[in-house]
Amino acid sequence: MKDGDPQPLVLRQDHGHVVRLVLNSPGNYNALSTAMIDALSAALDEVAASDARAVVIAAMGKAFCAGHDLREFQAARDDDDNGAAAYRRLFSHCAQMMQKLPALPQPVIAEVQGIATAAGCQLVASCDLAVAADGVRFGVNGVNIGLFCSTPMVALIRAIPPRNAFELLVTGDFIDAARAQELGLVNRVCAPDALASETMALAQTIAAKLPAAVQMGKRAFHRQRSMALTDAYAATGEVICENLLRPDTAEGIQAFLEKRAPNWD
Amino acid sequence: MKDGDPQPLVLRQDHGHVVRLVLNSPGNYNALSTAMIDALSAALDEVAASDARAVVIAAMGKAFCAGHDLREFQAARDDDDNGAAAYRRLFSHCAQMMQKLPALPQPVIAEVQGIATAAGCQLVASCDLAVAADGVRFGVNGVNIGLFCSTPMVALIRAIPPRNAFELLVTGDFIDAARAQELGLVNRVCAPDALASETMALAQTIAAKLPAAVQMGKRAFHRQRSMALTDAYAATGEVICENLLRPDTAEGIQAFLEKRAPNWD
Amino acid sequence: MKDGDPQPLVLRQDHGHVVRLVLNSPGNYNALSTAMIDALSAALDEVAASDARAVVIAAMGKAFCAGHDLREFQAARDDDDNGAAAYRRLFSHCAQMMQKLPALPQPVIAEVQGIATAAGCQLVASCDLAVAADGVRFGVNGVNIGLFCSTPMVALIRAIPPRNAFELLVTGDFIDAARAQELGLVNRVCAPDALASETMALAQTIAAKLPAAVQMGKRAFHRQRSMALTDAYAATGEVICENLLRPDTAEGIQAFLEKRAPNWD
Repeated sequence: MKDGDPQPLVLRQDHGHVVRLVLNSPGNYNALSTAMIDALSAALDEVAASDARAVVIAAMGKAFCAGHDLREFQAARDDDDNGAAAYRRLFSHCAQMMQKLPALPQPVIAEVQGIATAAGCQLVASCDLAVAADGVRFGVNGVNIGLFCSTPMVALIRAIPPRNAFELLVTGDFIDAARAQELGLVNRVCAPDALASETMALAQTIAAKLPAAVQMGKRAFHRQRSMALTDAYAATGEVICENLLRPDTAEGIQAFLEKRAPNWD
Repeated sequence: MKDGDPQPLVLRQDHGHVVRLVLNSPGNYNALSTAMIDALSAALDEVAASDARAVVIAAMGKAFCAGHDLREFQAARDDDDNGAAAYRRLFSHCAQMMQKLPALPQPVIAEVQGIATAAGCQLVASCDLAVAADGVRFGVNGVNIGLFCSTPMVALIRAIPPRNAFELLVTGDFIDAARAQELGLVNRVCAPDALASETMALAQTIAAKLPAAVQMGKRAFHRQRSMALTDAYAATGEVICENLLRPDTAEGIQAFLEKRAPNWD
Repeated sequence: MKDGDPQPLVLRQDHGHVVRLVLNSPGNYNALSTAMIDALSAALDEVAASDARAVVIAAMGKAFCAGHDLREFQAARDDDDNGAAAYRRLFSHCAQMMQKLPALPQPVIAEVQGIATAAGCQLVASCDLAVAADGVRFGVNGVNIGLFCSTPMVALIRAIPPRNAFELLVTGDFIDAARAQELGLVNRVCAPDALASETMALAQTIAAKLPAAVQMGKRAFHRQRSMALTDAYAATGEVICENLLRPDTAEGIQAFLEKRAPNWD
C-alpha cells in the first residue's frame, strides 16, 4: 500500500486458527456507515468460506462502535425522496450483516473497549459472545436524539431480560460492563490492558475444540432456539447422531476413555 | 363531588406529560374486582387517546394490589351455573385489561408499595417497567388457597426466568423487592418515602424524549419480541426508517451534531 | 430379591405423597445408558399414573449424572451401519424420556450432588426445579471430546440466558452451584449433608398444596410458555375458571376468608 492510500475499514489479523477483524475508523468511533457495513460484511463472507475456527471482532481507538453514521443519515435528506430509499437500503444491508454473525459457521466474540452504543450495542449483541473491559459503557440511546433503537433492540431483546432491555431503550441510559455481564450481554469482564489477550484466550479455547463439532453445534444452537420442544429435539437429535458418526468424534471419545489426548491432527 | 358520593376506584393525576393512575380501594387492598378492572380499563382507554407521554400506575394504602376479589368469587357461586359464566366474563375482562398495558402507546411504570400478589403481581409484570419500595413483597400465591395463578403466570413468565417463575407458582412463596430486581421483574428499588418521586423521575425522563419515537419504539418492542430474527428485522427496519424520516428526528440528530439541545417544541 | 440379582437401575422411595426416584448406577456415574433411560422412563410412567403429588430425582454415589454412556456409543460402531440406527434409537428414546419430565402431571425436582454434565445437565434442566449441594459442578462439556451437546442444549437454552448457555457449550467449561443459581438453572443451594432434606422439604411444600390446582397449573405453565400473549391468556383463562369451579378450591378460598385452614382431606 502506497502512502496516501486509504486504510481499509476492517483490518484482518490471523492468530493461528482465530481471525481477528478490527474496525478501523477510530476518527468517527467506528460508525457503521454504509462503507463500514459493506467492509465488515465482506470480511465475514471471507471468514465464512475459510477454515478459521473462531472469530473476534475488535475495534481501534477509544470506542468499540458508536452506532450508525449520523452525518450519512443527514446527507441523505437531500435526496428527492428525503432519504427514504437510502435509509431502506442502509437498514436492509445492516440487518443482513448483523444476521451473518449468528449464521457464520464459527463462533464470534466481540472484544469491547470504550463504548458500544445504538447499532454498536447491536453489533455486540449479535456476536455469540462478548468480552468487555472494565469501564466500558453500553447503551441503546438513540431515543435521546429522537431515533428509537428499533433495530438494535432486535438483537438486545434476544440477549438480555425484556424489562431491562425496555428500560435502556426508553431512558437512553448507559450501563457499565459489570452490569452488562449481570444481564447476560457480556460473558467476561477484564482490565482494559488485558482485553485483547483475554478475548484471544477465549477464542483459542474454542479453536482448540473439534471444528466440525463446534460448527454443527453453533448452527443447531441458533436453529432450535425458538422451536417448540419436540421440534427442537427432532432437529438436534439428527445433529448429534451425525456428530457421533464422525471418525474424529469416535477418536475423541476413545481418547477420553483411554485417558489420553485425542489425535485430531 | 358531594359528601357521601363514592370515591372513584381509579384516581387520575396529571403531572405535566405524565399521567399517574392510582388504584383507590385501600380497604380491600385494591383488589381487582370487576368494578376495579372496568375502572382501570376505562382509565387506560382514556390515556391511550390522550397526548400523555408516560403513565404511572400507583395505589393507595398498605398494598399495591392483592389480586382478585375473593368475596366476588364466592358470591358468584350462588348463580345457577355455580359462577361459570361470571368467572369467564371476569377473566376475559381482566385479560383484556392486562393486555392494554403493553398495547398502550405510552410506556407504563408500576409504582409498587406494600405487597403485590396474584393478579396484583400480574399487573406489575404487565406494565413495561416497575419501581418498588424496599420491603415490598411479590408473590403468585394463589396455590396456597387452591387456585393456581394460571393467568398471572402469563405475564410473569414473560418477565422473569422460567424456573424462578415456576418455583414461585408452586410454592406460593414471596420474594422481596431486591430479589424481584435480580429476577428482572423490577427495574429500580428505593426507600419507601422516595417511591413516588423516584417513579415520577423515571416517568419524566421518558416523557422528555421525542414522544413519537418512544411510541413507535414501544409498539415495535412488543410486536417483534417473539418473531423470528429475519421477520423482526424486517418489521423494525420499517419502523426505524419511518422514525428517521420525521422532521423532528432530523432536528434531534442535527442538534446532536451541532452539540445543542433539540428544538422539539 | 436374591443375592446376586441385579440391583434396579432406578430405585423408588415413597415419602408420603412425594416419590423419590434414585438413579442407581454409581459405578458409571449414573450414565444415561439405554437401560437407564428405559428404567427412568418406566418409573416416570408409573409416577404419572399414580397419586403422587411431587417427584424428586436423585442419584447414588459421587455424581448426579455424567451424561450418556460413552462405552455404549463406542460398542455400536461395530454395527453394520457404524451405529447410525442405534444412535437414532438412543437419542429418540432419550428425548422422549426428557420430555416426560415437563409433561408429568407432578412437579419434578432434581436433587443434584457431585457433578451433572452433558445429558446429566440436560436431565437437571428438564426437571421443573433443582436443588444443588454447594460445590456441585455443571457442564455441557461434550465439545471437549468432539461431541457438541446439541440435545442437552435444548433443555439448557430454555432454562438459562442464551449467551451464558452458548459459552458453556463451546468452551466446555464448568460452573458451580452458586453460578448455576444465578443463571436460573438451580433454585436452591445448600450444604451437601442437607441436600436430601432440603429437596424433600421443597417437595413436601408442593405436595401440601391442592394437588388438582398444582397439576392444572403445571400443565398450563408448559403449554402457554411459547404462545402469543392473547393465546396464552385464552388458554390460561379456561384453566383458572375450571380451577375456580372446583369444590375444593371453593373450600380453600372460603377457609382463607374465614382465617382457618382448608379442609381438603
